[in-house]
Amino acid sequence: MAKVGVVIGSDSDYDVMKITLAVLDELGIESEFRVASAHRTPDVVREFGEGAEKRGVEVIIAGAGMAAHLAGVIAAHTTLPVIAVPLPSGALDGLDALLSSVQMPGGIPVAVVAVGKAGAVNAAVLAAEILGLKYPETKEAIIEYRRARAAKVAEKDAELEKKVKGNPAE
Amino acid sequence: MAKVGVVIGSDSDYDVMKITLAVLDELGIESEFRVASAHRTPDVVREFGEGAEKRGVEVIIAGAGMAAHLAGVIAAHTTLPVIAVPLPSGALDGLDALLSSVQMPGGIPVAVVAVGKAGAVNAAVLAAEILGLKYPETKEAIIEYRRARAAKVAEKDAELEKKVKGNPAE
Amino acid sequence: MAKVGVVIGSDSDYDVMKITLAVLDELGIESEFRVASAHRTPDVVREFGEGAEKRGVEVIIAGAGMAAHLAGVIAAHTTLPVIAVPLPSGALDGLDALLSSVQMPGGIPVAVVAVGKAGAVNAAVLAAEILGLKYPETKEAIIEYRRARAAKVAEKDAELEKKVKGNPAE
Amino acid sequence: MAKVGVVIGSDSDYDVMKITLAVLDELGIESEFRVASAHRTPDVVREFGEGAEKRGVEVIIAGAGMAAHLAGVIAAHTTLPVIAVPLPSGALDGLDALLSSVQMPGGIPVAVVAVGKAGAVNAAVLAAEILGLKYPETKEAIIEYRRARAAKVAEKDAELEKKVKGNPAE
Amino acid sequence: MAKVGVVIGSDSDYDVMKITLAVLDELGIESEFRVASAHRTPDVVREFGEGAEKRGVEVIIAGAGMAAHLAGVIAAHTTLPVIAVPLPSGALDGLDALLSSVQMPGGIPVAVVAVGKAGAVNAAVLAAEILGLKYPETKEAIIEYRRARAAKVAEKDAELEKKVKGNPAE
Amino acid sequence: MAKVGVVIGSDSDYDVMKITLAVLDELGIESEFRVASAHRTPDVVREFGEGAEKRGVEVIIAGAGMAAHLAGVIAAHTTLPVIAVPLPSGALDGLDALLSSVQMPGGIPVAVVAVGKAGAVNAAVLAAEILGLKYPETKEAIIEYRRARAAKVAEKDAELEKKVKGNPAE
Amino acid sequence: MAKVGVVIGSDSDYDVMKITLAVLDELGIESEFRVASAHRTPDVVREFGEGAEKRGVEVIIAGAGMAAHLAGVIAAHTTLPVIAVPLPSGALDGLDALLSSVQMPGGIPVAVVAVGKAGAVNAAVLAAEILGLKYPETKEAIIEYRRARAAKVAEKDAELEKKVKGNPAE
Amino acid sequence: MAKVGVVIGSDSDYDVMKITLAVLDELGIESEFRVASAHRTPDVVREFGEGAEKRGVEVIIAGAGMAAHLAGVIAAHTTLPVIAVPLPSGALDGLDALLSSVQMPGGIPVAVVAVGKAGAVNAAVLAAEILGLKYPETKEAIIEYRRARAAKVAEKDAELEKKVKGNPAE
Repeated sequence: MAKVGVVIGSDSDYDVMKITLAVLDELGIESEFRVASAHRTPDVVREFGEGAEKRGVEVIIAGAGMAAHLAGVIAAHTTLPVIAVPLPSGALDGLDALLSSVQMPGGIPVAVVAVGKAGAVNAAVLAAEILGLKYPETKEAIIEYRRARAAKVAEKDAELEKKVKGNPAE
Repeated sequence: MAKVGVVIGSDSDYDVMKITLAVLDELGIESEFRVASAHRTPDVVREFGEGAEKRGVEVIIAGAGMAAHLAGVIAAHTTLPVIAVPLPSGALDGLDALLSSVQMPGGIPVAVVAVGKAGAVNAAVLAAEILGLKYPETKEAIIEYRRARAAKVAEKDAELEKKVKGNPAE
Repeated sequence: MAKVGVVIGSDSDYDVMKITLAVLDELGIESEFRVASAHRTPDVVREFGEGAEKRGVEVIIAGAGMAAHLAGVIAAHTTLPVIAVPLPSGALDGLDALLSSVQMPGGIPVAVVAVGKAGAVNAAVLAAEILGLKYPETKEAIIEYRRARAAKVAEKDAELEKKVKGNPAE
Repeated sequence: MAKVGVVIGSDSDYDVMKITLAVLDELGIESEFRVASAHRTPDVVREFGEGAEKRGVEVIIAGAGMAAHLAGVIAAHTTLPVIAVPLPSGALDGLDALLSSVQMPGGIPVAVVAVGKAGAVNAAVLAAEILGLKYPETKEAIIEYRRARAAKVAEKDAELEKKVKGNPAE
Repeated sequence: MAKVGVVIGSDSDYDVMKITLAVLDELGIESEFRVASAHRTPDVVREFGEGAEKRGVEVIIAGAGMAAHLAGVIAAHTTLPVIAVPLPSGALDGLDALLSSVQMPGGIPVAVVAVGKAGAVNAAVLAAEILGLKYPETKEAIIEYRRARAAKVAEKDAELEKKVKGNPAE
Repeated sequence: MAKVGVVIGSDSDYDVMKITLAVLDELGIESEFRVASAHRTPDVVREFGEGAEKRGVEVIIAGAGMAAHLAGVIAAHTTLPVIAVPLPSGALDGLDALLSSVQMPGGIPVAVVAVGKAGAVNAAVLAAEILGLKYPETKEAIIEYRRARAAKVAEKDAELEKKVKGNPAE
Repeated sequence: MAKVGVVIGSDSDYDVMKITLAVLDELGIESEFRVASAHRTPDVVREFGEGAEKRGVEVIIAGAGMAAHLAGVIAAHTTLPVIAVPLPSGALDGLDALLSSVQMPGGIPVAVVAVGKAGAVNAAVLAAEILGLKYPETKEAIIEYRRARAAKVAEKDAELEKKVKGNPAE
Repeated sequence: MAKVGVVIGSDSDYDVMKITLAVLDELGIESEFRVASAHRTPDVVREFGEGAEKRGVEVIIAGAGMAAHLAGVIAAHTTLPVIAVPLPSGALDGLDALLSSVQMPGGIPVAVVAVGKAGAVNAAVLAAEILGLKYPETKEAIIEYRRARAAKVAEKDAELEKKVKGNPAE
């Protein structure tokens, strides 16, 4: 049963947000995926939010650009944690989506992560950290994921350190 | 019967948005007034939007601050013109509300006016310009309103011009 | 007879603003189209604004970039509703055009929509919503247009949901 | 035993962040509270992060201003969910703290809420939503909290609607 | 005969822009002063611009806030140099006025100085530098003005240097 | 003898600033051209500024990017009018150059035009407007230049109006 | 003999920049203090920069607001390290001073610290860190200074932790 | 023995930051180079900072993008001067890295240089200026470096001046 519901406001957001799906999968977390627009298909969004808990969803991730209302509207219809990924789109390059997502009024929080790709990764990791409080296998997965990424940095460190030593003025 | 529906996201927005009510009244336009939050009372907002046309409302004005989703959410539930007044509130001083209101995705427009008090005035005037296409008395009222404001500028012009001539180095 | 007057400040704005013309056409709304600069051909702009009502125009749409004065200057010469599409152009990417369009002083409103392409679509839709108050056929057209776009989101939803289910870790 | 660890970067952040403590208390959630600076007392911050899980903490909330590194540094030392409240402080009014908190690199998420007071409220509510996945009493508390706030909006709605009807041009 | 025409968009701009009048007076330059709004009294603005040269005006200074179109609209109606002083007003604190003034399209320049009071001083000084090319007495006045201000800095330098030496840790 | 001194801070600015030279040439104005950096060759800049008047220069145009100090430093060494063209360069896209040029302290003005290419054109036109106060042939040239550009807009207007009429939904 | 030269662009900057003098004094570092404007008294600034090394100065600190050119201009005249404190002043609140100080072109660095008071403290501490490479007594002073500030955070931590435990819902 | 420690937060920062290594090499300064992430490998960063002085390092340069905590975290673990190069990365183009680096709280300074490539150059030059206080050969190298760059500007000046004279309207 899907523990994380991932929703995007437009199919054009898929290219970035499929990263979220991939990271969730890597962490062994079942997810459901939907395209639903807070403005074009508001009833789908509402039903998605209101019904999430009954479907077994425990964390929701919403990726949207411009006046990104998607996460906020879902948050209005559920008491599950809702994570927003602000996406760069159009001329203002994601600052609009960031402010539209993060500046929620008191009482209805949205958990916002970085704009764009880094945020798409982190939404999945944050969901895993939340689920890790309850599911030991997810806790282990997230610890292992972090260890692997730290190792990759160490590896690049060794590689570049060596390269630079060989030729500092390259 | 109310032709303009005015809604604010929080009672703290009333101090600025009562200007809108006053200008509508000055222009002879009936209005209804509500406090409804896109996040705290989303069903009230939806019903307000969906039912507006049946109540005889022809233009909707929404004033909200921070991640101002109010106008966008209403616009998702009606094909009436929706005007947004972005309100300064909190640390980011209205830039958040401006971007959250104006950067709507293709297909669901919101008509955005200036941040804060000037916007509160202009939402009412814009509503009047829209209604003026259909109601001759509103057309006349808006023409008269514009004439009066132009006269006030002319009056200030005469007053200050004279004052400055008397003492340019004050 | 043209009900919507579309004007751009420079022929370089045509690439984006022809979207507005296409959407108006799709909605069955007659439009007139002009290139006129608030700074280079101010008298053309003034005459365009002052004469619009006599030509039967009921809504004006102005697309301009940088210090976008076009919509504001037209608004100064008519009591018809004026919609501005801020266009990204030059180094500041449309933030200049957005602020130059939206921050109008009290009394002379401009209805501002999103920067760039989304705004070009929405200016036409907003014009249709306004005209829909008076013309039943436009009301029907806008309802149909919204329905079609919602259906397209639903279609993409079904398509991507299926694709993701087949291979969540793509 | 404290389920939420609340930490601030400077005692000057207490005035805003005590709101977080009050909301956690209202929701029946035990919290621990510390002042620790990512820059002035980095070892305290590291120990706070590394030891949180052993102390029984399940969610961490960090409030900090300017180059707000506190939440990010804690997140580097734990796999518990870390929530950041960006605080306005100094000349840049919180935009610095927002970007310093939210733009975390892929792999180490921080869940960011609104700048300042609204964020101080929402950090507590978000923590409750997360804990509500595991603790039924917290789930109930958050549902009740939301209901109460919605009721307050409805009450203000009734109050102001009535006031406005009595005197629309006030 | 007035060589500099000073115009403000609203009487509320007078408090800052009277500094311009005072500096012009101090530099021995005759000025005329008007209140005229690009949006509320566009014909007054146009006539002001078109007739300036005939009235003997050689430089125009326009002070305006928000979507500051005043200088740009005047520049469209004259080939005299037009100087803009962007004024902070409303929630966006002058960034709107700065961008609305400075981002003029190729062919119709506006000479923009600093936002607010420093700009009000500098508009007058810039006008004097321009007139100084033609009028030797203005050239002398501007040289003397600069010398006096440099002397004031030197004086403050001596004063504070001494104060600090006496008590560096005050 | 050169009436306008054009200086750029780095040879990489030449691509944009050669537009200034071309427009000056088109307007029949003699110019001198230099590369001099306020930071790398400060003495050249100072001598350029201090000696300009003796060389017969009447207006100075400085094009620079990033922390664009060039115009301000020249202005400190002359009482001739100094025009700045802020150039987009590096990650901040010209906002840095705009603020570094325009926010001059009271007493030492710089006349700032638009960021990038439009500014490169307008610096030349503004210089011509200033020189036009003194040289009738430049006055005529600038009037003719403006007429030609207005004609070009009119031509594009006719061209696109016709094209659109033929196929509004293209 | 003064090891640190502190200079401000205007006497109005003294209120913030006297903090720098106080911290230098607390760290046992001799300083000289001047008021000199890059624009109003450029020759004083140049001489200050060119002569600093001969006067025994080893680090320069410059505090300035708006288009803050002071540090950059000094850096052009010395190869000593130059530290800039961007000061908030006028409508743009220090963002102008920050960008004007930090975006220096390749080859002529300025070391920029935080806007306003935190920066005034840190300019002194950074100067001490630099001098600490050479002077053991300064090294010791900076270590002690850091220890004392860390202790103060620990003290506040103990104080507030206790207070909060006594009454978490205050 | 390495006098400058250069560290980057991610191997993707190497393309820009290898410029720093090259300039240090050109100035005859030994450097060590590491990849270490404040968030992914915080213990490596801490050890890098804490052990720097013992390894003979006298200045540290940290290049990082987005919520750039690297320089700040290192500064928390050393009293050596720490220089930050904010790198453009992701949708916000370096403004996030700039604010995250520069807005350090009082007591723990970071010396920030320009965003991106210019900053990569200047971090090396600033390190040289600092080391030049102690090492005469570095002092000479930096003087020579500056002379060479000034000569290059002069050369470009001569070259372009000549080119422009030959054909001003190119």
